[in-house]
Order: sequence, then structure tokens, then C-alpha cells
Amino acid sequence: MSALPECETLKLETEKGLLHVTLNRPDSRNAMSLAMVHELREVFAAIRDETEPRAVVLRGTGGHFCAGGDVKDMASARSQKVEDGEDPIFELNRAFGRLLTEVESAPQTTVAVLEGAVMGGGFGLACVTDVALCMEDAKFGLPETTLGITPAQIAPFVVRRIGLTRARRLALTGHRFGGSEAFWLGVVHDFAKSGEELETKVAKTLERVRHCAPRASRMTKELLLSVETEPLESLLDRAAADFAGAVRGDEGQEGTMAFMQKRKPSWAEE
Amino acid sequence: MSALPECETLKLETEKGLLHVTLNRPDSRNAMSLAMVHELREVFAAIRDETEPRAVVLRGTGGHFCAGGDVKDMASARSQKVEDGEDPIFELNRAFGRLLTEVESAPQTTVAVLEGAVMGGGFGLACVTDVALCMEDAKFGLPETTLGITPAQIAPFVVRRIGLTRARRLALTGHRFGGSEAFWLGVVHDFAKSGEELETKVAKTLERVRHCAPRASRMTKELLLSVETEPLESLLDRAAADFAGAVRGDEGQEGTMAFMQKRKPSWAEE
Amino acid sequence: MSALPECETLKLETEKGLLHVTLNRPDSRNAMSLAMVHELREVFAAIRDETEPRAVVLRGTGGHFCAGGDVKDMASARSQKVEDGEDPIFELNRAFGRLLTEVESAPQTTVAVLEGAVMGGGFGLACVTDVALCMEDAKFGLPETTLGITPAQIAPFVVRRIGLTRARRLALTGHRFGGSEAFWLGVVHDFAKSGEELETKVAKTLERVRHCAPRASRMTKELLLSVETEPLESLLDRAAADFAGAVRGDEGQEGTMAFMQKRKPSWAEE
Repeated sequence: MSALPECETLKLETEKGLLHVTLNRPDSRNAMSLAMVHELREVFAAIRDETEPRAVVLRGTGGHFCAGGDVKDMASARSQKVEDGEDPIFELNRAFGRLLTEVESAPQTTVAVLEGAVMGGGFGLACVTDVALCMEDAKFGLPETTLGITPAQIAPFVVRRIGLTRARRLALTGHRFGGSEAFWLGVVHDFAKSGEELETKVAKTLERVRHCAPRASRMTKELLLSVETEPLESLLDRAAADFAGAVRGDEGQEGTMAFMQKRKPSWAEE
Repeated sequence: MSALPECETLKLETEKGLLHVTLNRPDSRNAMSLAMVHELREVFAAIRDETEPRAVVLRGTGGHFCAGGDVKDMASARSQKVEDGEDPIFELNRAFGRLLTEVESAPQTTVAVLEGAVMGGGFGLACVTDVALCMEDAKFGLPETTLGITPAQIAPFVVRRIGLTRARRLALTGHRFGGSEAFWLGVVHDFAKSGEELETKVAKTLERVRHCAPRASRMTKELLLSVETEPLESLLDRAAADFAGAVRGDEGQEGTMAFMQKRKPSWAEE
Repeated sequence: MSALPECETLKLETEKGLLHVTLNRPDSRNAMSLAMVHELREVFAAIRDETEPRAVVLRGTGGHFCAGGDVKDMASARSQKVEDGEDPIFELNRAFGRLLTEVESAPQTTVAVLEGAVMGGGFGLACVTDVALCMEDAKFGLPETTLGITPAQIAPFVVRRIGLTRARRLALTGHRFGGSEAFWLGVVHDFAKSGEELETKVAKTLERVRHCAPRASRMTKELLLSVETEPLESLLDRAAADFAGAVRGDEGQEGTMAFMQKRKPSWAEE
């Protein structure tokens, strides 16, 4: 793994093939400050072209995932004038959208562990992960319109996550909901009734991710994310070329052999 | 609010920021006649560029929402010849599709209250609203193919509402279903077991809509509807510009201040 | 119905308007061999432009639908060299993707009956049918990444079936699941607790399909499948022209008359 950046708003821990990224501004329920956006973007940029880590676990300290945008940064940006057509509010907002795009397309498998507040920008961040698990008593919502503003960078990712039908109701009524409804709506893949159960489910998910070959997982994620934007026939052509490369490559040979020998493949070993 | 058109097939009532539109042809279970299509289009055109109403509630009289297309209009159109390449059946059908497009993109937040028959064209109309609530004993379905015709203008909106997987089964089997299955399929956002419960849920939804800032809601709805057709990056750029405008505008300032002062924002006052 | 091809890997049976296609390689749990891919493509090509059959029922012998790709064909393709840039693994994989595209767009209404293993390629085949019914104890999954390869031709169809959110978790964790979860995820439309219940549900589905007019069903299926790729306005124009043709055609006239005379339309007669 290449050197990770020094971070003030995040705790970073590495563990055999994993990177744990913990939002660490407990005094503001991990509100997404501009500094946090920059640090998260640096972390994902640092690992983008690396084979390690294979997976990233995102969570928050102090019993909350992320309560949304940071009010102080917003007030500060509002107090600044628009100069040469550059509005600091635009830049603040757009930087967060770039973060969402970059996390969505991260080659690693991303796992969100959601407790407490998962609001606004925190909701958006949860919506771009590959697997999201939450506590039943977590609190989700898009409160922007009730504050006179818009879920500008978040809404498109919510539509992609749960579909237009469900997203429009959430955004246009400011509906707030708990973990079981987040599961029903498709925001998360599973929920737990206790912290212990949540950690068990996280551990099982990571165990399963470890069983998936690293390079094959990256190719598969890239393929899945291309479905909405690439014409089907060209996508299938490209996928077949990737497939042939995988079958003839190290992973394909090791995977098939391990399967026939009824043993774990090398990448799944502890 | 600008002057609303005189209507024969609709009842219109206005109430602080709301427009209630009631399909009013109880003898035919509010079947969607050509006259009704025209009047609905006139109503939505009249309010399109107005700041009031902020929300539109759609329902039907006599215990039904809408039983589908009107058989008499269809018979009349069939008896007319195609002249100069203009087929009255084509025009009848296409006008209904235009209505669906216009209701879908209405800047107001739209709420459908669904009882009794929600069939064919009525099903289509329900599928373009922002929030849909129904009675558990409401009856939904796409019976067109069983009648030898196609759900031509409706089917695309059903796919957008509930996805291809569920839509294809409904349309190709003529499957009929009740309110709890409509909820499961994603046609509606909630259902009620009694008329009283339904009205309570409608009132709560409207109360939540009132808490959302009018201009922010319009921008958000436009943003949500653009996700399927606009490339993500340009959409996010545009959304950030809208966001900056909202933060610096009246609503953004009032919303933030009300939040800090722990009071209702001006637009939520009775 | 035109002549059906002679098949070694499939059992074909015709019955009033229906074609039953049964994957028939029970020794390998109906693994999708290259021969089976070719025969399935020939069968769907043979009926493509025919008015009969109206529906195709897909299932497997020996208590399984299909366990995935055939390991022997894969090993054989791997042992062959790439010549003139043509990789037999690419061709093997791509041929399966072409099968999925052709089954998806088959003008007939397709019904999958799923028991036992519904893995990898079998999962992909299930994902392109119009109605899928399964046993509660059927076993679904995308094990490719755990084998060091990718669900190359399958993944795009899984995304279209159940959405990106659910597909990414399945593919990136190798998650395996049963029939009730397949229902929850939207892979299938219904599930049964016993073989008897399954056959009852299949029979009811086919009875409903029989009530839908053949030509109207084909036009409707084509319309539904076009929603994702064709701009909405041009699609609605085309659909209105199809609608006018249907109303003025044999089926539209028979359907309306049968409805008014409270009798079954001709196409629904036994």
C-alpha cells in the first residue's frame, strides 16, 4: 500500500488487505467539513492504483456515521463574496460531489457501517458504497429542502441507489426513517438490532469479500458501474475480453485449481 | 394563483398552498375521457409557472380513482376514418401520454390518493406522482393486453416507476393486485386499512410537504427527474450552481435561521 | 410453428401455444455447455418470427435449473491457443451473452421455473425472462469472483434485473441465497414451498398469459424493453401508432367485443 496521507478529521487503520476509514469529528457528529472532504478524497486517491487494500470500511466515531454538511463551513462560504465568477459555496458543494463520484468508482470493495445520524451528506456517502450495513436505530434522511436548500450533490446518487420513485418522496417530504426502513428502501443491504450483531455481520461480509479474487473483483465492479452509461453490446464485448484474460491469468488458474482441490484460494488465506 | 379553467370532469378546490384535483365522473368510475385529459392538461398548464399552489392532491369521487380509458371515446375514435394520415385513435392516446409527461414534470409536489379502481390509464396517472398513498382494498392492474390492445402511453411510466422486471410481468400477464402488493411493488409509498387512516396519512404527508421550502422543492424535483437523461457530471455542476443560489437566497437564509432559532420557517407557518 | 432443431442437450415439447424447453444435462446439474448455448440460440431463432408459440417455459431436469458454466468446455477452451486474435474463451463467453440478449428480446412471453441450483450462467438466464417462479429451497448466486473470474456476460443483466445496489453486493461478496431472498431481491416474481405449489403457480401464470392477446403482448414486450434505450417522446409516439393499429386490428376488435359480451376472447379459448 502506498503512503496514506496524514489526516486530522479521519482515523486510518490498516489490517491484512483492509483499510478502515473512520470519520472522526465526534463533537459535530462527524459533520462533513470541507477539510474532511479533502482528506477523504486524498485517501481514495492514494489507494486508487494500488492492489492493496482490497476493501475499505467506512464508519464514524462516537455512535454516529455523519450528520450532514458542516454548518460552520457553510456560514463561512456564505460570508465570502463571489469573485471572478467563483462562488465558494459552489466549490464547497461540488467538492463533495466529486468525493461521491470517486468513492463510487473506487476499485476497492467498499463497506459502510452505519450508526446514529446518517443524514444529508452522510446519507449520500452511504449511497455510493458496495455494501451498507446499519443499526436498526440509525437515523436516515434528506432534510435539505426543509432548510431552504437542495440535496444537490446527493440526490442523483440517491436516485441511482433506490430509484426515482422512492427518492422523490424522500427528498420532497424530508421524510426521516430508521434502519429497517432503510433496508426496505434499499439504502442498506442489511441491518442489526445490536452493536454485537452489527459487528458480526461486518466481519462476515469482510470474510466473504476476502474470498473474492482481488483483480476479478475490480473488473467486476468496473463492469457493474458501466451498465448505466455504456451500450450493452460494447459492454458485453469488453466484458468477454476481460473474462478471457481472467481465465488465462493467475487468479483464474488458482481459483479453478483451489475449487477442484477443495481448498481456499491463495487470496482467501489468513 | 392564476385563474384555473372551468372544468366539467374535474372538481377543483384550493386551500392554503394546495390544489385538490378530483376526477369527477363517478358514473363511469372516473374513466379517463378525452375531455378529462384536456381539462387535466389545462389545469397543470395554468399552474406551471406559478409559485402557488406548492402541492397538488389528485383523487377520484365515488370511491374510485380511475378505471382506465373511456370506452365511448374509444368507440367514437374507432368509427372515425384516418384522414390526411391523422388517426383520431393516435391523437386520443398520445394526448394522454402528454398529460402523463406534464404531470410527471409539474414543478409542484404531487400526491395521489388512491381508492377503488386504479386501472390502465388511472394506474399510469398514479405512476407519475411524487407521493402515492392507497387503500389496502384498491384494485390495480394493466388489463390492456387482455383486451387486445397495448398499455402504450402507460407502460414506459410503469417501467420508470417500478423497474422493468416487475413491469414486464404485470403487462404480460394482466396481473391484478391490491394495495399491499402495490406497496410491495413500489407503485405506492404507503397504504391504509381504513378511510380514516388514509386521510391521516394524506394529512401528514401534506404537513411534511409544507415544511419543505417551495423553491428548493421545485429545484430538487427538477434535479431528480433529470438523473435518467442528463450525464452525471454536468448534472452535478448545474446542481452545485442551484445550491449556491439557494444558500444565498431568501429560502436558504430563512431556513438556516429558523433551524438555529428552533422555530418553523416562514413557509411552514399555517 | 416452424420446425424446431434437433437437440442433444435440451428436451422440447409443444402444447397449445406453448413451448417447453427443458435443460437436459442432469449429470452436470444442467451446466451451460457450449453445445447447450448453441441449441438454445437455435431454438429461439427458429421461433423468433413465428406467431406460435406465444410463450416459452424454461426449466431444468433432475431437480436443478442450471449450475452455471461447464467446467470441461472452459478447460478445453483454455488449452487452446489464441490464434489470429481469436480467443476461444472469448467466443465461448460471448456466445452465452448473445443467448441472453436473444432470450431477453424474444417476442414470446418467457417463464422460468427454477429449482435447485440457479448459479452463474443459470442465474443470468433466469434474469432475462418475463416471469420467474422458484422453489423456496432453490440456490442462487454469482460465485465467479470467488473462482478468480468475472460474471462477465451475466452481470449487466443482473443489474438490469435487480438494480445496481443489489447487484454489486451479490457480485462483490459471492453472496448465496435461497428462494425467498430471490423474491425479496426481485430476481423472481414469486416462490413456492412445494413442488405442487410451484406447478400450480406455473399453471396460473400460463393461464393468465393465454388471456393476453398474442400480437398485443409482443408489441407490449418490445415497448417495455425499449424504455431504457429510446428517448421517451419518440417511444410514446411510436407506442401511440402501435396502439391505433391494435385498436383497429383483429385483436382490438375481438377483445372489446368479448369484454362487452362477457365472454373469453378467441385467443384465450382452450
